[in-house]
Amino acid sequence: MKNVGINGYGTIGKRVADAVSCQDDMQIVGVTKRTPDFEAYLAVEKGFPLYISAPEREGLFEEAGIKVTGTIDDLYSKIDVMVDCTPGGIGAKNKEVYDDMGVKGIFQGGEKHEQIGKSFNSFSNYKDNLGADFVRVVSCNTTGLCRTLKPIDDLCGIKKVRAVMVRRGADPGQIKSGPINAIVPNPPTVPSHHGPDVQTVMYDLDITTIALLVPTTLMHQHNLMVELETPPALDDVIDTLEATPRVLLVEAEKGLGSTAEIMEYARDLGRPRSDLNEIAVWKESLNIKDGELFYMQAIHQESDVVPENVDCIRAMLEMEDDPAKSIEKTNKNMGIN
Amino acid sequence: MKNVGINGYGTIGKRVADAVSCQDDMQIVGVTKRTPDFEAYLAVEKGFPLYISAPEREGLFEEAGIKVTGTIDDLYSKIDVMVDCTPGGIGAKNKEVYDDMGVKGIFQGGEKHEQIGKSFNSFSNYKDNLGADFVRVVSCNTTGLCRTLKPIDDLCGIKKVRAVMVRRGADPGQIKSGPINAIVPNPPTVPSHHGPDVQTVMYDLDITTIALLVPTTLMHQHNLMVELETPPALDDVIDTLEATPRVLLVEAEKGLGSTAEIMEYARDLGRPRSDLNEIAVWKESLNIKDGELFYMQAIHQESDVVPENVDCIRAMLEMEDDPAKSIEKTNKNMGIN
Repeated sequence: MKNVGINGYGTIGKRVADAVSCQDDMQIVGVTKRTPDFEAYLAVEKGFPLYISAPEREGLFEEAGIKVTGTIDDLYSKIDVMVDCTPGGIGAKNKEVYDDMGVKGIFQGGEKHEQIGKSFNSFSNYKDNLGADFVRVVSCNTTGLCRTLKPIDDLCGIKKVRAVMVRRGADPGQIKSGPINAIVPNPPTVPSHHGPDVQTVMYDLDITTIALLVPTTLMHQHNLMVELETPPALDDVIDTLEATPRVLLVEAEKGLGSTAEIMEYARDLGRPRSDLNEIAVWKESLNIKDGELFYMQAIHQESDVVPENVDCIRAMLEMEDDPAKSIEKTNKNMGIN
Repeated sequence: MKNVGINGYGTIGKRVADAVSCQDDMQIVGVTKRTPDFEAYLAVEKGFPLYISAPEREGLFEEAGIKVTGTIDDLYSKIDVMVDCTPGGIGAKNKEVYDDMGVKGIFQGGEKHEQIGKSFNSFSNYKDNLGADFVRVVSCNTTGLCRTLKPIDDLCGIKKVRAVMVRRGADPGQIKSGPINAIVPNPPTVPSHHGPDVQTVMYDLDITTIALLVPTTLMHQHNLMVELETPPALDDVIDTLEATPRVLLVEAEKGLGSTAEIMEYARDLGRPRSDLNEIAVWKESLNIKDGELFYMQAIHQESDVVPENVDCIRAMLEMEDDPAKSIEKTNKNMGIN
């Protein structure tokens, strides 16, 4: 049984804590918070030992009546790996501390690949991260791209990918982000950073991406144009994606014609927080024309990287050498088909 | 002086009426309404003779106290051309009536090319519509694509176009359309109809389009990936687009980083209804990579086709043989740079 700490019990941290807790080969021994908000309160309610990440703020937790187990400095000696879920840019600074404390660290997609050194996607490069000390799980968008591009590349080879990524403006609980009524090229330059980010785990892929923000909170949406080496029958692509774990083919004609309807479906599935960890691919959108595969997919930005974090723990702690076995185990324990 | 009627004084109709009114070679002799709403009231206020398009509804106008000049049947004998701005699908039915009445008709992009017979874009195929009896001005999205693709094709030849079109869910005044919080593949199949629609005016263009709806009202946004025959220097593309009428290069770094900021700029320009008839291309987005041109653009769906309607009148009534001269005249009179 391996011991896991979560630094930053927020959007991703609280989900990784739950996902780790339902595995049988790892457990949460502590989570950290900087602010005594409702998430800190709920962490204690759930039975997670709570540590303060900014020791000078201990008084705030006392005032809020939230019982803490200690400060983050007390946590390092108890863990085999820290999953850093702090806001983008903070993780790279924390890495130095973890290094000093002799603790392995997993970081999220908000950190720069160059600052962490290694990046991870369960399907693309699990084995390259066996035993590694510091690894970054790529972002929700990059994870979404890898989930579908890797099996397609394995099936028939990819010559070139073009992707236009329509991103949600804010998460459902965020009230300070926009836009409310605008389409925002983000960045306004082409290509966006997402293509190079995919290349941190699918090293030789030729990919160009364009990204924008729109006024919605539920999911990102991707439009993929994939030139193929040896175009297969469309049914072979469909069969491949249907057989790929963490990929879900959905049909507009069955009432799943938008990100809103897909998340309504996820609510009916009864998973924690109504999450959808899988990438949803619109079956009707799949088409091969002049040797090029087209498709559209939707990414639940808050949760798709969560099972990847669990797999990453297994790779780094050398608990499992075979990615397929880790993926299967993680999925089974999380209730992902 | 040519006499123009507008059938359907709504979103497009009222704008075409104003655009025709500021030309010196054509005038509005009547506009029609089916419902005595605020637009009908304002048409009379502006001095446009108002005709009822559904004679059996005359009582409704009387009740509303809106004075009408007659029914649509009284209008046909007064006009050289009817600009049909009725909702999509109605125009094709009206065409039979116009034919019976011996009146030429211009239709909007909501009609099917096959049902009207000819389609029009000022830059792409003006001369092919000289003297024509029934012509369809292509939709706002198709007009937006043609405006920038035609000059690029003329500059360096286009091998293949891929475009992802992020469309506004509703116009600002529409309260019954969605989505409110979703990204909707629309259609959920690839390719969308927009590519074939461009081919009704740029006959030989190889173009594949993908379209979706998002929760915004201001503008459509297009993401263009254009494989070029003979890739020029990027500056040549910029110079070409800067020299193209009805195309406006905007810069995110000057505060025009979204559709909302572009429309705020349009409000400052002081045009009627704060419209932006030009296609706004983000200058920063222009990039050539491996012989492929990338760019992003924004389309004001309510107004970009309006000057095209004016040019189409000139072509059909053979008032001007040279598209460049008509475009220049229309622009000058409408205050478009």
